[in-house]
Amino acid sequence: MIDLVADLGEGFGAYRIGNDPELLEIVSSANIACGFHAGDPDIMNFTVAECVRRGVGIGAHPSFPDLRGFGRRTMDLSEDEVRNDVLYQLGALSAFAAMHSGRVAHVAPHGRLGNLVAVRPDYAAAVVDAAAGVDEDLIVVAQEGELAKAARARGLRVGVVGIVDRAYQEDGTLVPRSLPGAVLHDPHAIVDRTVRMVCERKLQTTSGVDIDIEADTVLLHGDNEGAVKLARLIRSELTSAGVHIAPLAEVLAAKHPVA
Amino acid sequence: MIDLVADLGEGFGAYRIGNDPELLEIVSSANIACGFHAGDPDIMNFTVAECVRRGVGIGAHPSFPDLRGFGRRTMDLSEDEVRNDVLYQLGALSAFAAMHSGRVAHVAPHGRLGNLVAVRPDYAAAVVDAAAGVDEDLIVVAQEGELAKAARARGLRVGVVGIVDRAYQEDGTLVPRSLPGAVLHDPHAIVDRTVRMVCERKLQTTSGVDIDIEADTVLLHGDNEGAVKLARLIRSELTSAGVHIAPLAEVLAAKHPVA
Amino acid sequence: MIDLVADLGEGFGAYRIGNDPELLEIVSSANIACGFHAGDPDIMNFTVAECVRRGVGIGAHPSFPDLRGFGRRTMDLSEDEVRNDVLYQLGALSAFAAMHSGRVAHVAPHGRLGNLVAVRPDYAAAVVDAAAGVDEDLIVVAQEGELAKAARARGLRVGVVGIVDRAYQEDGTLVPRSLPGAVLHDPHAIVDRTVRMVCERKLQTTSGVDIDIEADTVLLHGDNEGAVKLARLIRSELTSAGVHIAPLAEVLAAKHPVA
Amino acid sequence: MIDLVADLGEGFGAYRIGNDPELLEIVSSANIACGFHAGDPDIMNFTVAECVRRGVGIGAHPSFPDLRGFGRRTMDLSEDEVRNDVLYQLGALSAFAAMHSGRVAHVAPHGRLGNLVAVRPDYAAAVVDAAAGVDEDLIVVAQEGELAKAARARGLRVGVVGIVDRAYQEDGTLVPRSLPGAVLHDPHAIVDRTVRMVCERKLQTTSGVDIDIEADTVLLHGDNEGAVKLARLIRSELTSAGVHIAPLAEVLAAKHPVA
Repeated sequence: MIDLVADLGEGFGAYRIGNDPELLEIVSSANIACGFHAGDPDIMNFTVAECVRRGVGIGAHPSFPDLRGFGRRTMDLSEDEVRNDVLYQLGALSAFAAMHSGRVAHVAPHGRLGNLVAVRPDYAAAVVDAAAGVDEDLIVVAQEGELAKAARARGLRVGVVGIVDRAYQEDGTLVPRSLPGAVLHDPHAIVDRTVRMVCERKLQTTSGVDIDIEADTVLLHGDNEGAVKLARLIRSELTSAGVHIAPLAEVLAAKHPVA
Repeated sequence: MIDLVADLGEGFGAYRIGNDPELLEIVSSANIACGFHAGDPDIMNFTVAECVRRGVGIGAHPSFPDLRGFGRRTMDLSEDEVRNDVLYQLGALSAFAAMHSGRVAHVAPHGRLGNLVAVRPDYAAAVVDAAAGVDEDLIVVAQEGELAKAARARGLRVGVVGIVDRAYQEDGTLVPRSLPGAVLHDPHAIVDRTVRMVCERKLQTTSGVDIDIEADTVLLHGDNEGAVKLARLIRSELTSAGVHIAPLAEVLAAKHPVA
Repeated sequence: MIDLVADLGEGFGAYRIGNDPELLEIVSSANIACGFHAGDPDIMNFTVAECVRRGVGIGAHPSFPDLRGFGRRTMDLSEDEVRNDVLYQLGALSAFAAMHSGRVAHVAPHGRLGNLVAVRPDYAAAVVDAAAGVDEDLIVVAQEGELAKAARARGLRVGVVGIVDRAYQEDGTLVPRSLPGAVLHDPHAIVDRTVRMVCERKLQTTSGVDIDIEADTVLLHGDNEGAVKLARLIRSELTSAGVHIAPLAEVLAAKHPVA
Repeated sequence: MIDLVADLGEGFGAYRIGNDPELLEIVSSANIACGFHAGDPDIMNFTVAECVRRGVGIGAHPSFPDLRGFGRRTMDLSEDEVRNDVLYQLGALSAFAAMHSGRVAHVAPHGRLGNLVAVRPDYAAAVVDAAAGVDEDLIVVAQEGELAKAARARGLRVGVVGIVDRAYQEDGTLVPRSLPGAVLHDPHAIVDRTVRMVCERKLQTTSGVDIDIEADTVLLHGDNEGAVKLARLIRSELTSAGVHIAPLAEVLAAKHPVA
């Protein structure tokens, strides 16, 4: 069983990015922009309503406050500032979930904040404090790193995300984008890698070594037609391989059934 | 029994407006800015924490999205846009309340939006939809008008606010600011009027006629030293008159005890 | 001789709207967004550089401060606020023009502000004050209405814009969008109408009557493929009809040659 | 002869910071906020008008785009982004100067950007490119460091600013704020230091050694009553010592008279 997740609701005002209508037919969970790097109240409302209607799991995708930089630029905020910014965004999304009789199931930091929480313990703590402060049942979506560590230490559930178009190192972290080969481009290789990751719990690193990987969700993209086609292919190949695709909360519940 | 409420947390970044430290010692409820006309996540966090610590009731003070105009300029938004903007702000504040083990007790639209919900049924409906969508127990703070009417029709509790430094007309609505005598300036007259409104449930209109008024909360200001002094005087005179000052939720609970 | 103008540079951060690369090959002038409804410093810099490189006339496209509403929502600002907002945007664009050894040739208010300056004398005065304050040689682009009137009264040159996909009334103003038939959709009819407007200085109104029209520039769109195709067709048909297409300043100079 | 400069126009919307009315009576130049860390079009218009009326030199005070952080937080922007942001702000301020028949005389980066241009060659180049792109006569205000170096290399005039309430190191740079003794607090020591810096061109470093310093302008503050009092004292003591106080452009013209 695996969750398929993508970033959704990343428009703003008259602007749109990505291919939400198609992705909503493919994913089982959504990372929804909360207004800081993208997203506005109208788009959040629409996206949450669509997720509830289709049974897609709702996740908050909080960011640094940088609409112009799409949350991809480093800002040097204090731990308290990050915590309060995440609280604000989490809360805002929760209101739309409540309005549509849904609930926010997970939180997955976006962009540069998402990179930094993997390596900065203060930012990891900020996100965990915010998540736990709002709802002890929130799932923290993270790669292995500081955020996953801090969330587990706090007793929060972690949904490990597999980034199937990125190369991994032997310690289970991603090869930095600055290095050659960091990003994979061959759709078939990516699909095969995904199926193996989900079915065998193995992934081949750049050094050729296999590592164990326990991914609960796979990150898909919708930036262009090719990405959507790949996302669709990943879903159909996983289904063909007999994998059940379900929202993250179900995946985690199946993994750790309550006695 | 009466609630005393003031607008709090209306700074932004390095900016401060009003006298929050003094007002927090006087009021029993706070209308807290939610980031659209004023307020930022750090200020919201601080203000909510102070309210919880002191037992001050927490209210959301949503606004048109107009930081530069402090929410005082007319914007012609659709009903859906207003509803979604209010949802966003309500949710954001709720996260800070949850973080500090408090809860948002009421919602009171700010500034120009606050004026318009009294007369525009579409904006009144937008606020009521947002409030009911987030929490059926939210109290809607309003003067008599469209918002109060819509909230009651929806089954939400209404906290009627007395604006003691404004002149009233015989139908219980305020004399428009554009008319002479709309705003009262004599502190002693305001204090007397407040005590009479709370104790006798009567108010003299500009025409000299007494009207009945059922105020649940009295709006205080903190813009300048004079305002804070007046707020303090109102509190002490009410206390001297034997009036119990309590958060809005308590005032309403006492008025309508559950059988 | 006629100018062809389109709104350009209307992206923001990671977002893009319209088809700038294609439009830049078709138009002789550009209305460039200045950051209030769209546009950011990086996009402004790029767009201005492209215009200078291609000899496309540079125009400022100032707006109400409403990125989320793309400048299409009514805001009730004072005349001073509008003037200062237009000054700010005009100045900002001028810096990029200076950087690339170009200059801002015209100003054309955007969206809702653009609608209102045609009918509100205070907003018309605000735009004219700002334009004259910055540069007495700036051309004010307008339909017939308050802005054109105020600009002429102030001694500024006016570039009358023909909106060829909109129906006109006998007094030379547009049929309001709320009425049926206000917007024309048939590309061939629009092209014919454009050629006739430019070559014969005539336009047929909705009542069937011909009116005189002295358009200096024709507004083209780039919202979708159809719009770009139509824009290209208008250009080629005008060229086939022997019309010289040139930036607005040249069109006006030819019309009113200095003795 | 010396210039006295302070940061002005740092309010936003309903907010005010500093004591502009008093500072305008003391300074001969102003660093005017341009809307990115503070300042809005209405405040810029008012501040520029006051400067022109009083003969106070107008300077642009561009910042990182961070209203919430008042431009004090590090953002990792590219050189192009910094250049375009500075161009935008410079241009915007220039429009208000033109409106009031004044001109922007200098540019002085604000806050964190101001710190970084002293040490980052890319940001220094960005500011110099923007300044030279808009107006080759613009004076770049800087402490000794990368910005001053880059401006001189480009042929721009540099106005060296003396920070009289900060301790200096032997190389003429400031003692970092993180070190003890970095900020001076004794008003009399600061006044004496200022007079000596202006009259003798000498400054005592933390190590007790005297260094030569060629300051063209002295930075004053207006954050609180004490700061304004100190600013007033510095002005009167300099005047008593026979120093002529004049806008920066005059100071530099006197220093380097055109043959």
